[in-house]
Amino acid sequence: MKTALIQQANCSDIQKNINKLKINILDCVKKGAELIILQELHNNLYFCQTENVKNFDLAEEINGFSTQFFGKLAKENSVVIVISIFEKRAVGLYHNTAVVLEKDGSIAGIYRKMHIPDDPAFYEKFYFTQGDSGFEPIKTSVGNLGVMVCWDQWYPEAARLMALAGAEMLIYPTAIGWDIADTPAEQQRQKEAWIAVQRGHAVANHLPVIACNRTGWEQNPTNENDGIKFWGHSFIFGSQGEILAQADENEQNIIVEIDTKRTEDLRRIFPFFRDRRIDAYSDILKRWNN
Amino acid sequence: MKTALIQQANCSDIQKNINKLKINILDCVKKGAELIILQELHNNLYFCQTENVKNFDLAEEINGFSTQFFGKLAKENSVVIVISIFEKRAVGLYHNTAVVLEKDGSIAGIYRKMHIPDDPAFYEKFYFTQGDSGFEPIKTSVGNLGVMVCWDQWYPEAARLMALAGAEMLIYPTAIGWDIADTPAEQQRQKEAWIAVQRGHAVANHLPVIACNRTGWEQNPTNENDGIKFWGHSFIFGSQGEILAQADENEQNIIVEIDTKRTEDLRRIFPFFRDRRIDAYSDILKRWNN
Repeated sequence: MKTALIQQANCSDIQKNINKLKINILDCVKKGAELIILQELHNNLYFCQTENVKNFDLAEEINGFSTQFFGKLAKENSVVIVISIFEKRAVGLYHNTAVVLEKDGSIAGIYRKMHIPDDPAFYEKFYFTQGDSGFEPIKTSVGNLGVMVCWDQWYPEAARLMALAGAEMLIYPTAIGWDIADTPAEQQRQKEAWIAVQRGHAVANHLPVIACNRTGWEQNPTNENDGIKFWGHSFIFGSQGEILAQADENEQNIIVEIDTKRTEDLRRIFPFFRDRRIDAYSDILKRWNN
Repeated sequence: MKTALIQQANCSDIQKNINKLKINILDCVKKGAELIILQELHNNLYFCQTENVKNFDLAEEINGFSTQFFGKLAKENSVVIVISIFEKRAVGLYHNTAVVLEKDGSIAGIYRKMHIPDDPAFYEKFYFTQGDSGFEPIKTSVGNLGVMVCWDQWYPEAARLMALAGAEMLIYPTAIGWDIADTPAEQQRQKEAWIAVQRGHAVANHLPVIACNRTGWEQNPTNENDGIKFWGHSFIFGSQGEILAQADENEQNIIVEIDTKRTEDLRRIFPFFRDRRIDAYSDILKRWNN
Protein backbone atom coordinates (compact mmCIF):
# COMPACT_ATOMS: atom_id res chain seq x y z
CA MET A 1 0.00 0.00 0.00
CA LYS A 2 1.56 3.24 -1.15
CA THR A 3 1.71 5.78 1.66
CA ALA A 4 2.72 9.40 1.38
CA LEU A 5 3.59 12.25 3.68
CA ILE A 6 3.95 15.91 2.85
CA GLN A 7 6.69 17.83 4.67
CA GLN A 8 6.13 21.51 4.11
CA ALA A 9 7.28 24.94 5.29
CA ASN A 10 4.45 27.32 6.07
CA CYS A 11 3.97 31.06 5.79
CA SER A 12 1.51 33.51 7.33
CA ASP A 13 -0.81 33.31 4.30
CA ILE A 14 -3.20 30.43 4.99
CA GLN A 15 -4.46 30.34 1.41
CA LYS A 16 -0.90 29.93 0.11
CA ASN A 17 -0.26 27.07 2.55
CA ILE A 18 -3.44 25.33 1.47
CA ASN A 19 -2.75 25.82 -2.23
CA LYS A 20 0.67 24.27 -1.78
CA LEU A 21 -0.83 21.35 0.14
CA LYS A 22 -3.28 20.77 -2.70
CA ILE A 23 -0.50 20.73 -5.30
CA ASN A 24 1.47 18.29 -3.13
CA ILE A 25 -1.54 16.05 -2.53
CA LEU A 26 -2.14 15.83 -6.29
CA ASP A 27 1.56 15.01 -6.78
CA CYS A 28 1.30 12.15 -4.24
CA VAL A 29 -1.88 10.87 -5.89
CA LYS A 30 -0.20 10.91 -9.28
CA LYS A 31 2.59 8.78 -7.82
CA GLY A 32 0.08 6.21 -6.60
CA ALA A 33 -0.47 7.12 -2.95
CA GLU A 34 -3.57 5.61 -1.34
CA LEU A 35 -2.93 7.24 2.03
CA ILE A 36 -1.57 10.76 2.49
CA ILE A 37 -0.51 12.27 5.82
CA LEU A 38 -0.25 16.00 6.41
CA GLN A 39 1.79 17.62 9.17
CA GLU A 40 0.35 18.97 12.42
CA LEU A 41 -1.71 22.20 12.09
CA HIS A 42 -0.76 22.36 8.43
CA ASN A 43 -2.92 25.31 7.43
CA ASN A 44 -1.13 27.84 9.62
CA LEU A 45 2.07 29.02 11.05
CA TYR A 46 2.69 27.28 14.36
CA PHE A 47 0.72 29.83 16.39
CA CYS A 48 1.56 28.26 19.77
CA GLN A 49 4.87 30.13 19.89
CA THR A 50 3.04 32.71 21.96
CA GLU A 51 -0.10 32.87 24.11
CA ASN A 52 -2.55 35.16 22.38
CA VAL A 53 -6.34 34.95 22.70
CA LYS A 54 -6.78 36.26 19.15
CA ASN A 55 -5.35 32.97 17.87
CA PHE A 56 -8.54 31.20 18.92
CA ASP A 57 -10.07 32.81 15.82
CA LEU A 58 -8.04 30.26 13.82
CA ALA A 59 -10.02 27.37 15.29
CA GLU A 60 -12.74 25.60 13.30
CA GLU A 61 -15.33 22.92 13.91
CA ILE A 62 -14.76 19.34 12.80
CA ASN A 63 -17.21 19.87 9.95
CA GLY A 64 -15.55 23.11 8.98
CA PHE A 65 -13.46 24.47 6.17
CA SER A 66 -10.58 21.97 6.35
CA THR A 67 -12.73 18.86 6.41
CA GLN A 68 -14.71 20.17 3.46
CA PHE A 69 -11.69 21.29 1.45
CA PHE A 70 -9.54 18.21 1.99
CA GLY A 71 -12.59 15.92 1.97
CA LYS A 72 -13.34 17.14 -1.56
CA LEU A 73 -9.74 16.38 -2.55
CA ALA A 74 -9.99 12.94 -0.93
CA LYS A 75 -13.16 12.19 -2.87
CA GLU A 76 -11.98 13.58 -6.20
CA ASN A 77 -8.81 11.51 -6.00
CA SER A 78 -10.14 8.49 -4.10
CA VAL A 79 -7.45 8.72 -1.46
CA VAL A 80 -7.45 8.62 2.35
CA ILE A 81 -6.05 11.85 3.84
CA VAL A 82 -5.03 12.48 7.46
CA ILE A 83 -5.44 16.17 8.24
CA SER A 84 -4.72 18.10 11.43
CA ILE A 85 -6.89 20.97 12.64
CA PHE A 86 -7.24 23.44 15.49
CA GLU A 87 -10.64 22.25 16.61
CA LYS A 88 -13.28 24.42 18.23
CA ARG A 89 -15.37 21.85 20.05
CA ALA A 90 -17.48 24.32 21.99
CA VAL A 91 -17.32 27.91 23.11
CA GLY A 92 -14.03 28.11 25.03
CA LEU A 93 -13.13 24.44 24.41
CA TYR A 94 -10.46 23.66 21.84
CA HIS A 95 -8.44 20.61 20.77
CA ASN A 96 -5.51 19.70 18.56
CA THR A 97 -7.33 17.18 16.40
CA ALA A 98 -6.48 14.84 13.57
CA VAL A 99 -9.29 14.05 11.15
CA VAL A 100 -9.12 11.07 8.82
CA LEU A 101 -10.93 11.55 5.52
CA GLU A 102 -12.11 8.49 3.63
CA LYS A 103 -11.82 7.97 -0.15
CA ASP A 104 -15.43 9.09 -0.55
CA GLY A 105 -14.71 12.34 1.26
CA SER A 106 -16.51 11.35 4.45
CA ILE A 107 -14.99 11.54 7.92
CA ALA A 108 -13.63 8.10 8.88
CA GLY A 109 -12.82 9.23 12.40
CA ILE A 110 -11.07 11.80 14.55
CA TYR A 111 -8.34 11.73 17.18
CA ARG A 112 -7.91 14.47 19.79
CA LYS A 113 -4.29 14.84 20.90
CA MET A 114 -4.02 13.14 24.28
CA HIS A 115 -0.63 14.39 25.54
CA ILE A 116 -0.33 18.18 25.42
CA PRO A 117 3.14 19.71 25.70
CA ASP A 118 4.03 23.04 27.14
CA ASP A 119 7.51 24.44 27.08
CA PRO A 120 9.05 27.71 25.93
CA ALA A 121 7.67 28.56 22.45
CA PHE A 122 5.39 25.52 22.46
CA TYR A 123 2.58 26.88 24.68
CA GLU A 124 0.04 24.23 23.76
CA LYS A 125 -1.55 23.88 27.17
CA PHE A 126 -2.91 27.40 26.69
CA TYR A 127 -4.67 26.47 23.46
CA PHE A 128 -5.62 22.81 23.62
CA THR A 129 -7.61 20.76 26.10
CA GLN A 130 -6.18 17.26 26.35
CA GLY A 131 -8.14 14.72 24.34
CA ASP A 132 -10.75 12.48 25.90
CA SER A 133 -11.19 10.15 22.93
CA GLY A 134 -8.52 7.70 24.12
CA PHE A 135 -6.23 5.70 21.88
CA GLU A 136 -8.62 4.23 19.33
CA PRO A 137 -7.45 3.35 15.82
CA ILE A 138 -9.55 4.78 13.02
CA LYS A 139 -11.03 2.20 10.65
CA THR A 140 -10.52 3.07 6.99
CA SER A 141 -10.49 1.37 3.63
CA VAL A 142 -6.68 1.26 3.84
CA GLY A 143 -6.52 -0.28 7.32
CA ASN A 144 -6.85 0.58 11.00
CA LEU A 145 -4.87 3.78 11.44
CA GLY A 146 -3.30 4.48 14.83
CA VAL A 147 -3.33 8.23 14.42
CA MET A 148 -1.79 10.28 17.23
CA VAL A 149 -0.28 13.77 17.26
CA CYS A 150 3.23 15.10 17.99
CA TRP A 151 3.92 15.00 21.78
CA ASP A 152 2.12 11.62 21.88
CA GLN A 153 5.08 10.25 19.94
CA TRP A 154 7.31 10.27 23.03
CA TYR A 155 4.98 7.96 24.97
CA PRO A 156 5.42 4.19 24.62
CA GLU A 157 2.11 3.76 26.45
CA ALA A 158 0.25 5.51 23.64
CA ALA A 159 1.85 3.38 20.92
CA ARG A 160 1.16 0.21 22.88
CA LEU A 161 -2.47 1.12 23.49
CA MET A 162 -2.99 1.75 19.79
CA ALA A 163 -1.40 -1.64 19.02
CA LEU A 164 -3.55 -3.43 21.60
CA ALA A 165 -6.62 -1.78 20.07
CA GLY A 166 -5.73 -3.22 16.66
CA ALA A 167 -3.83 -0.43 14.91
CA GLU A 168 -2.08 -1.61 11.76
CA MET A 169 0.25 1.38 11.61
CA LEU A 170 1.14 4.35 13.80
CA ILE A 171 0.84 7.83 12.31
CA TYR A 172 2.12 11.06 13.87
CA PRO A 173 1.44 14.48 12.33
CA THR A 174 4.06 16.65 14.04
CA ALA A 175 5.47 20.15 14.40
CA ILE A 176 8.77 19.87 16.21
CA GLY A 177 11.84 22.02 15.89
CA TRP A 178 14.86 23.51 17.52
CA ASP A 179 15.43 26.43 19.77
CA ILE A 180 18.12 28.13 17.69
CA ALA A 181 19.94 29.02 20.91
CA ASP A 182 20.81 25.33 21.43
CA THR A 183 24.21 24.10 20.23
CA PRO A 184 24.32 22.12 16.99
CA ALA A 185 25.35 19.03 19.00
CA GLU A 186 22.31 19.36 21.29
CA GLN A 187 20.08 19.94 18.26
CA GLN A 188 21.33 16.75 16.68
CA ARG A 189 20.80 14.77 19.88
CA GLN A 190 17.21 16.05 20.10
CA LYS A 191 16.45 15.12 16.51
CA GLU A 192 18.06 11.68 16.90
CA ALA A 193 16.13 11.08 20.12
CA TRP A 194 12.90 12.00 18.37
CA ILE A 195 13.60 9.48 15.62
CA ALA A 196 14.85 6.82 18.05
CA VAL A 197 11.86 6.79 20.36
CA GLN A 198 9.43 6.32 17.47
CA ARG A 199 11.60 3.66 15.88
CA GLY A 200 11.34 1.93 19.24
CA HIS A 201 7.53 1.96 18.96
CA ALA A 202 7.80 0.26 15.56
CA VAL A 203 9.97 -2.51 16.98
CA ALA A 204 8.08 -3.00 20.25
CA ASN A 205 4.72 -3.25 18.48
CA HIS A 206 5.76 -4.58 15.08
CA LEU A 207 3.96 -1.78 13.33
CA PRO A 208 5.01 0.67 10.62
CA VAL A 209 5.50 4.18 12.01
CA ILE A 210 5.00 7.34 9.98
CA ALA A 211 5.94 10.78 11.28
CA CYS A 212 5.16 13.84 9.16
CA ASN A 213 6.94 16.91 10.48
CA ARG A 214 6.90 20.58 9.58
CA THR A 215 10.05 22.23 8.25
CA GLY A 216 11.38 25.76 7.92
CA TRP A 217 12.03 28.63 10.31
CA GLU A 218 9.11 30.52 11.83
CA GLN A 219 9.65 33.83 13.58
CA ASN A 220 8.45 34.34 17.14
CA PRO A 221 5.60 36.90 16.96
CA THR A 222 6.68 38.58 20.19
CA ASN A 223 10.39 38.22 19.51
CA GLU A 224 10.82 36.74 22.97
CA ASN A 225 13.25 34.34 21.32
CA ASP A 226 14.66 33.61 17.88
CA GLY A 227 11.71 31.55 16.73
CA ILE A 228 11.59 27.86 15.93
CA LYS A 229 13.53 26.07 13.25
CA PHE A 230 11.27 23.11 12.48
CA TRP A 231 13.61 20.25 11.73
CA GLY A 232 11.77 18.28 9.06
CA HIS A 233 13.32 14.80 8.81
CA SER A 234 9.93 13.13 8.48
CA PHE A 235 10.28 9.36 8.22
CA ILE A 236 8.62 6.03 7.66
CA PHE A 237 9.78 2.92 9.51
CA GLY A 238 8.66 -0.59 8.63
CA SER A 239 7.25 -2.98 11.21
CA GLN A 240 10.68 -4.25 12.22
CA GLY A 241 11.93 -0.71 12.74
CA GLU A 242 13.72 -0.77 9.40
CA ILE A 243 13.96 2.61 7.75
CA LEU A 244 11.84 2.90 4.60
CA ALA A 245 12.20 6.62 3.99
CA GLN A 246 13.74 9.62 5.67
CA ALA A 247 13.48 13.24 4.63
CA ASP A 248 16.12 15.88 5.19
CA GLU A 249 15.31 19.49 6.12
CA ASN A 250 13.88 20.41 2.71
CA GLU A 251 10.23 20.51 1.76
CA GLN A 252 9.34 17.20 0.15
CA ASN A 253 6.73 14.57 -0.51
CA ILE A 254 7.68 11.04 0.45
CA ILE A 255 5.85 8.11 -1.12
CA VAL A 256 6.74 4.55 -0.19
CA GLU A 257 5.20 1.11 -0.20
CA ILE A 258 4.21 -0.11 3.27
CA ASP A 259 3.68 -3.79 3.94
CA THR A 260 1.36 -4.23 6.92
CA LYS A 261 1.27 -8.01 6.40
CA ARG A 262 4.82 -8.29 7.75
CA THR A 263 3.47 -7.54 11.23
CA GLU A 264 2.07 -11.04 11.56
CA ASP A 265 5.29 -12.74 10.41
CA LEU A 266 7.26 -10.79 13.00
CA ARG A 267 4.80 -11.42 15.81
CA ARG A 268 5.08 -15.17 15.19
CA ILE A 269 8.84 -15.36 15.71
CA PHE A 270 9.15 -12.44 18.20
CA PRO A 271 5.90 -12.97 20.13
CA PHE A 272 6.05 -9.97 22.45
CA PHE A 273 2.29 -9.93 22.92
CA ARG A 274 2.24 -13.56 24.09
CA ASP A 275 4.53 -12.76 27.01
CA ARG A 276 3.38 -9.39 28.32
CA ARG A 277 3.22 -9.50 32.15
CA ILE A 278 -0.12 -7.78 32.49
CA ASP A 279 -0.28 -9.12 36.05
CA ALA A 280 2.76 -6.97 36.90
CA TYR A 281 2.11 -3.73 35.01
CA SER A 282 -0.41 -1.99 37.28
CA ASP A 283 2.04 0.65 38.53
CA ILE A 284 2.04 2.12 35.02
CA LEU A 285 -1.24 3.71 36.05
CA LYS A 286 0.55 5.64 38.80
CA ARG A 287 2.04 9.09 38.42
CA TRP A 288 5.19 7.90 40.23
CA ASN A 289 5.96 5.08 42.60
CA ASN A 290 5.49 7.16 45.74
CA MET B 1 30.76 7.11 37.01
CA LYS B 2 32.81 4.61 35.03
CA THR B 3 30.70 1.68 33.93
CA ALA B 4 31.93 -1.49 32.26
CA LEU B 5 30.46 -4.45 30.46
CA ILE B 6 32.15 -7.68 29.48
CA GLN B 7 31.14 -9.21 26.16
CA GLN B 8 32.48 -12.73 26.03
CA ALA B 9 32.27 -15.96 24.02
CA ASN B 10 31.78 -19.04 26.16
CA CYS B 11 32.87 -22.68 25.90
CA SER B 12 31.67 -25.88 27.53
CA ASP B 13 34.32 -25.63 30.28
CA ILE B 14 32.71 -23.59 33.07
CA GLN B 15 36.01 -23.07 34.87
CA LYS B 16 37.56 -21.58 31.72
CA ASN B 17 34.60 -19.20 31.31
CA ILE B 18 34.88 -18.07 34.92
CA ASN B 19 38.67 -17.63 34.75
CA LYS B 20 38.23 -15.47 31.67
CA LEU B 21 35.53 -13.42 33.42
CA LYS B 22 37.88 -12.87 36.36
CA ILE B 23 40.68 -11.64 34.09
CA ASN B 24 38.25 -9.30 32.34
CA ILE B 25 36.81 -8.00 35.62
CA LEU B 26 40.32 -7.16 36.83
CA ASP B 27 41.01 -5.42 33.52
CA CYS B 28 37.85 -3.28 33.94
CA VAL B 29 38.79 -2.47 37.54
CA LYS B 30 42.27 -1.43 36.46
CA LYS B 31 40.66 0.95 33.96
CA GLY B 32 38.60 2.56 36.71
CA ALA B 33 35.22 0.82 36.48
CA GLU B 34 32.98 1.22 39.54
CA LEU B 35 30.17 -0.88 38.05
CA ILE B 36 30.70 -4.01 35.94
CA ILE B 37 27.95 -5.86 34.08
CA LEU B 38 28.28 -9.47 32.95
CA GLN B 39 26.21 -11.08 30.22
CA GLU B 40 23.23 -13.37 30.80
CA LEU B 41 24.08 -16.85 32.19
CA HIS B 42 27.76 -16.03 31.82
CA ASN B 43 29.19 -19.15 33.46
CA ASN B 44 27.85 -21.59 30.88
CA LEU B 45 27.11 -22.24 27.31
CA TYR B 46 23.56 -21.11 26.55
CA PHE B 47 21.99 -24.42 27.60
CA CYS B 48 18.44 -23.41 26.60
CA GLN B 49 19.13 -24.43 22.98
CA THR B 50 17.53 -27.74 23.89
CA GLU B 51 15.14 -29.06 26.55
CA ASN B 52 17.09 -31.48 28.72
CA VAL B 53 16.31 -32.22 32.38
CA LYS B 54 20.00 -32.84 33.08
CA ASN B 55 20.62 -29.14 32.60
CA PHE B 56 18.85 -28.41 35.87
CA ASP B 57 22.07 -29.67 37.50
CA LEU B 58 23.61 -26.36 36.38
CA ALA B 59 21.30 -24.39 38.67
CA GLU B 60 22.51 -22.94 41.95
CA GLU B 61 21.00 -21.12 44.90
CA ILE B 62 21.30 -17.35 45.27
CA ASN B 63 23.91 -17.87 47.99
CA GLY B 64 25.80 -20.37 45.87
CA PHE B 65 29.06 -20.60 44.02
CA SER B 66 28.61 -17.58 41.72
CA THR B 67 27.60 -15.14 44.41
CA GLN B 68 30.55 -16.24 46.55
CA PHE B 69 33.08 -16.21 43.71
CA PHE B 70 32.06 -12.87 42.19
CA GLY B 71 31.22 -11.41 45.62
CA LYS B 72 34.83 -12.02 46.62
CA LEU B 73 36.01 -10.23 43.46
CA ALA B 74 33.60 -7.35 44.17
CA LYS B 75 34.95 -6.99 47.70
CA GLU B 76 38.64 -7.35 46.81
CA ASN B 77 38.28 -4.68 44.12
CA SER B 78 35.62 -2.52 45.73
CA VAL B 79 33.40 -2.65 42.66
CA VAL B 80 29.69 -3.32 42.07
CA ILE B 81 29.15 -6.35 39.83
CA VAL B 82 25.92 -7.46 38.12
CA ILE B 83 25.97 -11.23 37.65
CA SER B 84 23.43 -13.55 36.04
CA ILE B 85 22.70 -17.02 37.35
CA PHE B 86 20.49 -20.03 36.72
CA GLU B 87 18.75 -19.93 40.09
CA LYS B 88 17.40 -22.95 41.93
CA ARG B 89 14.82 -21.34 44.20
CA ALA B 90 13.28 -24.59 45.43
CA VAL B 91 13.06 -28.21 44.37
CA GLY B 92 11.62 -28.02 40.86
CA LEU B 93 11.46 -24.19 40.83
CA TYR B 94 14.04 -22.28 38.80
CA HIS B 95 14.58 -18.70 37.66
CA ASN B 96 16.83 -16.70 35.37
CA THR B 97 18.13 -14.30 37.98
CA ALA B 98 20.42 -11.29 38.09
CA VAL B 99 22.27 -10.72 41.35
CA VAL B 100 23.84 -7.36 42.16
CA LEU B 101 26.93 -7.57 44.35
CA GLU B 102 27.93 -4.55 46.42
CA LYS B 103 31.47 -3.23 46.82
CA ASP B 104 31.73 -5.06 50.16
CA GLY B 105 30.84 -8.37 48.51
CA SER B 106 27.32 -8.48 49.94
CA ILE B 107 24.18 -9.00 47.87
CA ALA B 108 22.60 -5.62 47.12
CA GLY B 109 19.55 -7.23 45.56
CA ILE B 110 18.26 -9.68 42.99
CA TYR B 111 16.00 -9.51 39.95
CA ARG B 112 14.17 -12.54 38.57
CA LYS B 113 13.58 -12.27 34.82
CA MET B 114 9.94 -11.28 34.37
CA HIS B 115 9.38 -11.93 30.64
CA ILE B 116 10.42 -15.43 29.60
CA PRO B 117 10.88 -16.13 25.88
CA ASP B 118 10.37 -19.39 24.09
CA ASP B 119 11.14 -19.89 20.48
CA PRO B 120 13.18 -22.39 18.48
CA ALA B 121 16.60 -22.82 20.18
CA PHE B 122 15.61 -20.45 23.02
CA TYR B 123 13.50 -22.85 25.11
CA GLU B 124 13.47 -20.75 28.24
CA LYS B 125 9.92 -21.48 29.32
CA PHE B 126 11.05 -25.06 29.99
CA TYR B 127 13.77 -23.93 32.39
CA PHE B 128 12.65 -20.71 34.02
CA THR B 129 9.57 -19.73 35.97
CA GLN B 130 8.68 -16.13 35.28
CA GLY B 131 9.80 -13.77 38.02
CA ASP B 132 7.50 -12.56 40.75
CA SER B 133 9.78 -9.85 42.12
CA GLY B 134 8.36 -7.14 39.85
CA PHE B 135 10.28 -4.24 38.40
CA GLU B 136 12.14 -2.88 41.41
CA PRO B 137 15.45 -1.05 41.02
CA ILE B 138 18.26 -2.34 43.21
CA LYS B 139 19.78 0.26 45.53
CA THR B 140 23.57 0.28 45.45
CA SER B 141 26.44 2.59 46.30
CA VAL B 142 26.62 3.55 42.60
CA GLY B 143 22.91 4.33 42.23
CA ASN B 144 19.52 2.69 41.78
CA LEU B 145 20.05 0.03 39.15
CA GLY B 146 17.11 -0.95 36.95
CA VAL B 147 18.39 -4.45 36.27
CA MET B 148 16.33 -6.60 33.92
CA VAL B 149 17.26 -9.58 31.74
CA CYS B 150 17.26 -10.16 27.97
CA TRP B 151 13.66 -10.68 26.72
CA ASP B 152 12.58 -7.91 29.13
CA GLN B 153 14.44 -5.51 26.87
CA TRP B 154 11.72 -5.65 24.21
CA TYR B 155 9.05 -4.38 26.64
CA PRO B 156 8.54 -0.62 27.02
CA GLU B 157 6.33 -1.37 30.03
CA ALA B 158 9.25 -2.90 31.92
CA ALA B 159 11.55 0.04 31.23
CA ARG B 160 8.84 2.52 32.24
CA LEU B 161 8.06 0.66 35.46
CA MET B 162 11.73 0.71 36.43
CA ALA B 163 11.85 4.44 35.70
CA LEU B 164 8.71 5.12 37.74
CA ALA B 165 10.24 3.15 40.60
CA GLY B 166 13.28 5.41 40.59
CA ALA B 167 15.84 3.56 38.46
CA GLU B 168 18.79 5.75 37.50
CA MET B 169 19.89 3.49 34.67
CA LEU B 170 18.55 0.43 32.84
CA ILE B 171 20.78 -2.65 32.65
CA TYR B 172 20.17 -5.73 30.52
CA PRO B 173 22.39 -8.84 30.70
CA THR B 174 21.53 -10.62 27.46
CA ALA B 175 22.14 -13.68 25.31
CA ILE B 176 20.69 -13.02 21.90
CA GLY B 177 21.84 -14.30 18.55
CA TRP B 178 20.95 -15.32 15.06
CA ASP B 179 19.53 -18.41 13.56
CA ILE B 180 22.23 -18.98 10.94
CA ALA B 181 19.51 -20.04 8.49
CA ASP B 182 18.26 -16.45 8.32
CA THR B 183 19.49 -14.24 5.50
CA PRO B 184 22.18 -11.65 6.31
CA ALA B 185 19.63 -8.89 5.62
CA GLU B 186 17.17 -10.38 8.13
CA GLN B 187 19.98 -10.85 10.66
CA GLN B 188 20.90 -7.19 10.36
CA ARG B 189 17.29 -6.10 10.75
CA GLN B 190 16.97 -8.19 13.92
CA LYS B 191 20.14 -6.77 15.43
CA GLU B 192 19.14 -3.20 14.51
CA ALA B 193 15.67 -3.74 15.98
CA TRP B 194 17.24 -5.01 19.21
CA ILE B 195 19.36 -1.90 19.48
CA ALA B 196 16.54 0.43 18.42
CA VAL B 197 13.97 -0.72 20.96
CA GLN B 198 16.39 -0.26 23.86
CA ARG B 199 17.54 3.11 22.56
CA GLY B 200 13.86 4.00 22.62
CA HIS B 201 13.73 3.14 26.34
CA ALA B 202 16.64 5.51 26.97
CA VAL B 203 14.84 8.37 25.21
CA ALA B 204 11.36 7.72 26.63
CA ASN B 205 12.65 7.54 30.19
CA HIS B 206 15.73 9.75 30.01
CA LEU B 207 17.88 7.02 31.45
CA PRO B 208 21.19 5.48 30.36
CA VAL B 209 20.72 1.97 28.95
CA ILE B 210 23.38 -0.73 29.11
CA ALA B 211 23.02 -4.05 27.29
CA CYS B 212 25.71 -6.70 27.75
CA ASN B 213 25.35 -9.46 25.18
CA ARG B 214 27.08 -12.78 24.61
CA THR B 215 29.08 -13.33 21.46
CA GLY B 216 30.38 -16.32 19.50
CA TRP B 217 28.82 -19.37 17.90
CA GLU B 218 27.46 -22.17 20.08
CA GLN B 219 26.62 -25.54 18.61
CA ASN B 220 23.15 -27.02 19.08
CA PRO B 221 23.62 -30.09 21.33
CA THR B 222 21.00 -32.11 19.44
CA ASN B 223 21.99 -30.75 16.04
CA GLU B 224 18.34 -29.94 15.39
CA ASN B 225 19.65 -26.76 13.79
CA ASP B 226 22.95 -25.05 13.13
CA GLY B 227 23.26 -23.54 16.59
CA ILE B 228 23.17 -19.89 17.58
CA LYS B 229 25.53 -17.17 16.49
CA PHE B 230 25.34 -14.73 19.40
CA TRP B 231 25.64 -11.33 17.86
CA GLY B 232 27.57 -9.34 20.46
CA HIS B 233 27.16 -5.62 19.72
CA SER B 234 26.72 -4.75 23.39
CA PHE B 235 26.12 -1.05 23.86
CA ILE B 236 25.71 1.84 26.23
CA PHE B 237 23.32 4.70 25.46
CA GLY B 238 23.21 7.93 27.42
CA SER B 239 20.02 9.36 28.87
CA GLN B 240 19.11 11.17 25.65
CA GLY B 241 19.59 7.98 23.63
CA GLU B 242 23.00 9.16 22.44
CA ILE B 243 25.42 6.34 21.77
CA LEU B 244 28.29 6.21 24.27
CA ALA B 245 29.80 2.87 23.26
CA GLN B 246 29.03 0.04 20.87
CA ALA B 247 30.85 -3.26 20.56
CA ASP B 248 31.23 -5.26 17.38
CA GLU B 249 31.09 -9.07 17.27
CA ASN B 250 34.44 -9.58 18.99
CA GLU B 251 34.99 -10.34 22.66
CA GLN B 252 35.66 -7.08 24.44
CA ASN B 253 35.40 -5.05 27.61
CA ILE B 254 33.75 -1.68 27.26
CA ILE B 255 34.39 0.99 29.89
CA VAL B 256 32.75 4.41 29.61
CA GLU B 257 31.79 7.32 31.80
CA ILE B 258 28.04 7.53 32.47
CA ASP B 259 26.45 10.78 33.62
CA THR B 260 23.22 10.03 35.48
CA LYS B 261 22.82 13.71 36.43
CA ARG B 262 21.86 14.54 32.86
CA THR B 263 18.52 12.80 33.45
CA GLU B 264 17.22 15.74 35.48
CA ASP B 265 18.29 18.34 32.89
CA LEU B 266 16.47 16.41 30.18
CA ARG B 267 13.32 15.86 32.22
CA ARG B 268 13.06 19.62 32.82
CA ILE B 269 12.93 20.57 29.14
CA PHE B 270 11.25 17.37 27.86
CA PRO B 271 8.90 16.71 30.81
CA PHE B 272 7.39 13.42 29.68
CA PHE B 273 6.53 12.40 33.23
CA ARG B 274 4.55 15.62 33.82
CA ASP B 275 2.16 14.78 30.98
CA ARG B 276 1.56 11.03 31.20
CA ARG B 277 -2.18 10.32 30.76
CA ILE B 278 -2.47 7.83 33.60
CA ASP B 279 -6.25 8.34 33.46
CA ALA B 280 -6.23 6.84 29.95
CA TYR B 281 -3.72 3.98 30.21
CA SER B 282 -5.76 1.28 31.93
CA ASP B 283 -6.10 -0.90 28.83
CA ILE B 284 -2.35 -1.58 29.08
CA LEU B 285 -3.33 -4.08 31.76
CA LYS B 286 -5.34 -6.05 29.20
CA ARG B 287 -4.01 -8.89 27.10
CA TRP B 288 -5.69 -7.40 24.02
CA ASN B 289 -8.55 -5.01 23.47
CA ASN B 290 -11.16 -7.74 23.03
